[in-house]
Amino acid sequence: MNFTKQQLHAFTKNVFIKCSMNECDAELAATVLLSADMRGIDSHGVARLSGYVRLFENNRANANPSFKIIHETPSTATLDADKGLGLISAPFAMNIAIEKAKNVGTGWVAIKNSNHFGVAAYHAMQALQHNMIGIAMTNASPLVAPTFSKERMLGTNPICFVFPAEKHQPIVVDMATSAASNGKLEIAQRAEKNIPTSWLQDENGIDSTDAEELKKGGALLPLGGYKGYGLSSIVDLLSGVLSGANYGPWVPPFVSFLNPLNNLPGEGIGHFVGAMRIDAFRPSSEFKKNIDNWIDAFKNANPIDEKQKVLIPGELEFLETERRMKEGIVLNEKVVADLKILADKFEIEF
Amino acid sequence: MNFTKQQLHAFTKNVFIKCSMNECDAELAATVLLSADMRGIDSHGVARLSGYVRLFENNRANANPSFKIIHETPSTATLDADKGLGLISAPFAMNIAIEKAKNVGTGWVAIKNSNHFGVAAYHAMQALQHNMIGIAMTNASPLVAPTFSKERMLGTNPICFVFPAEKHQPIVVDMATSAASNGKLEIAQRAEKNIPTSWLQDENGIDSTDAEELKKGGALLPLGGYKGYGLSSIVDLLSGVLSGANYGPWVPPFVSFLNPLNNLPGEGIGHFVGAMRIDAFRPSSEFKKNIDNWIDAFKNANPIDEKQKVLIPGELEFLETERRMKEGIVLNEKVVADLKILADKFEIEF
Repeated sequence: MNFTKQQLHAFTKNVFIKCSMNECDAELAATVLLSADMRGIDSHGVARLSGYVRLFENNRANANPSFKIIHETPSTATLDADKGLGLISAPFAMNIAIEKAKNVGTGWVAIKNSNHFGVAAYHAMQALQHNMIGIAMTNASPLVAPTFSKERMLGTNPICFVFPAEKHQPIVVDMATSAASNGKLEIAQRAEKNIPTSWLQDENGIDSTDAEELKKGGALLPLGGYKGYGLSSIVDLLSGVLSGANYGPWVPPFVSFLNPLNNLPGEGIGHFVGAMRIDAFRPSSEFKKNIDNWIDAFKNANPIDEKQKVLIPGELEFLETERRMKEGIVLNEKVVADLKILADKFEIEF
Repeated sequence: MNFTKQQLHAFTKNVFIKCSMNECDAELAATVLLSADMRGIDSHGVARLSGYVRLFENNRANANPSFKIIHETPSTATLDADKGLGLISAPFAMNIAIEKAKNVGTGWVAIKNSNHFGVAAYHAMQALQHNMIGIAMTNASPLVAPTFSKERMLGTNPICFVFPAEKHQPIVVDMATSAASNGKLEIAQRAEKNIPTSWLQDENGIDSTDAEELKKGGALLPLGGYKGYGLSSIVDLLSGVLSGANYGPWVPPFVSFLNPLNNLPGEGIGHFVGAMRIDAFRPSSEFKKNIDNWIDAFKNANPIDEKQKVLIPGELEFLETERRMKEGIVLNEKVVADLKILADKFEIEF
């Protein structure tokens, strides 16, 4: 089933309004979700809309949060997101970071008491129009086992850095710190295909190529082994511990049918965003010319196979955005069925 | 051959003084090198001393640099290291970052025109005594092929984040962004052992388990595939492009028998360091108590094998430091022979 961005945006916004979000927040939340669909990150777009609705219904998320800056210096802030969606708390925090960067060179905001923030790239990319490097990361509920552990202690904890270019598209590194995301696993599950080793271990901690093992007590593996565990820890410590959110095994699950643990050490889930003004380090035009040069050098690196040139981080997503702008967004049946249920429930046209 | 830290420190300092470094810089450079040996990172300690000497001899490094801050905001600076060793420019930059963090919450310094900075953890750990999170990274000469490339375009580009704890040792994540460091490869070469797949490709871009392939035109592989390529790119862009240093394939080699390329786009190699005051985000005692709690939770995660508990990032290096403090530092024959040559050349006792 093929949809235009506009169709899905309007529908998504209406659903959020029906969930008692105000028009402005609903518009923003829809924009963030659709940015994932447009970039080809289907797992983080409208496919999650019903999940957000269930968070509201189960009182796990607050549709009308009052964001509060609870701590501040000229280059930092800590935001209490009042159980609001990360889809709106992260852009709010990113704006604070950008304002601080305008004043003192860089700005950094830790966010607690938040919820799933969608695709990290949307937030980090807000910095680009201000000639800044953008950074966004979040912790997430535990699916990943640290090295030597049977137990899931870390989320897929994505990290994103974006760098503006002059003539080229910006460089956008946006990656889970696990070997594979849950989304990739779901694709393998649907296709009933084996997965590569190093993605997953079973409940005994043995490497497995069976994508179903995650549901049977297994765990995702950190990217490249113990280094990925370290990387994921950085994201968890900045997003969770520094902000005052939950961390490690205590990060509340996104799915509303799983309850958070008792005796939580923090509030909600945590994010960490930052903005660095390029011209706080060197003239912006110099920097961007060199970014272009970097991109040209990497694109022209001697390829292993002439038919597959080296890709710049984020390049595929820009191509996909262009394609979907022309050809629309194809949603799979299950997602369409999910959205139809929402349409019926809220009496919205779909 | 077993040495005390003091013996090796005194010798190393004397060598640097004989290379015309002033006493204060020589003391610092020796301290940084010895910190690697004490942490068990043998590849980055006195084993590299003769390499630094050759950089001086070939006029690739400046023993008496004048560091200049060439750009500055309240939270940022860019440092021209005047071809000095990273062993002293990085601590200098880290001090600036710490002072800026005292004033405005965080401090970030990009360094260009520098040289090999030794072990990243030393620099980042300077933040700990100020109750700050410390960050250090550097680019390095190209040994790593980005995904789909035959060509080496990136260094092993390490990244380090350190977080202070209360009752526990701090969390120290210090990792190359390649699957394996060159040091690990050298160990396999000496032992004439096969290496795991995913460490290395041969000159045609085919995965290889032969550690010798790197010398025959092969390349190291990024950590966990294309994500490691993204990660390594972040380090290169912050350290190289943001500072005005060289980047990607142009980063000058550490070994002095290889010449830098012509028409370099920047100056020397680049580093990027940062410091974030904990209490710019939340009260420091709260943060550290939660770090302790994080550490306790991870140490007590259900292990795959009862005999191997989950390790905290940096834990092994603290244990190794304690051990070497008691038992001394064992250097291999080749390193000892190397140091003896330096002792003869400079007429220093060894």
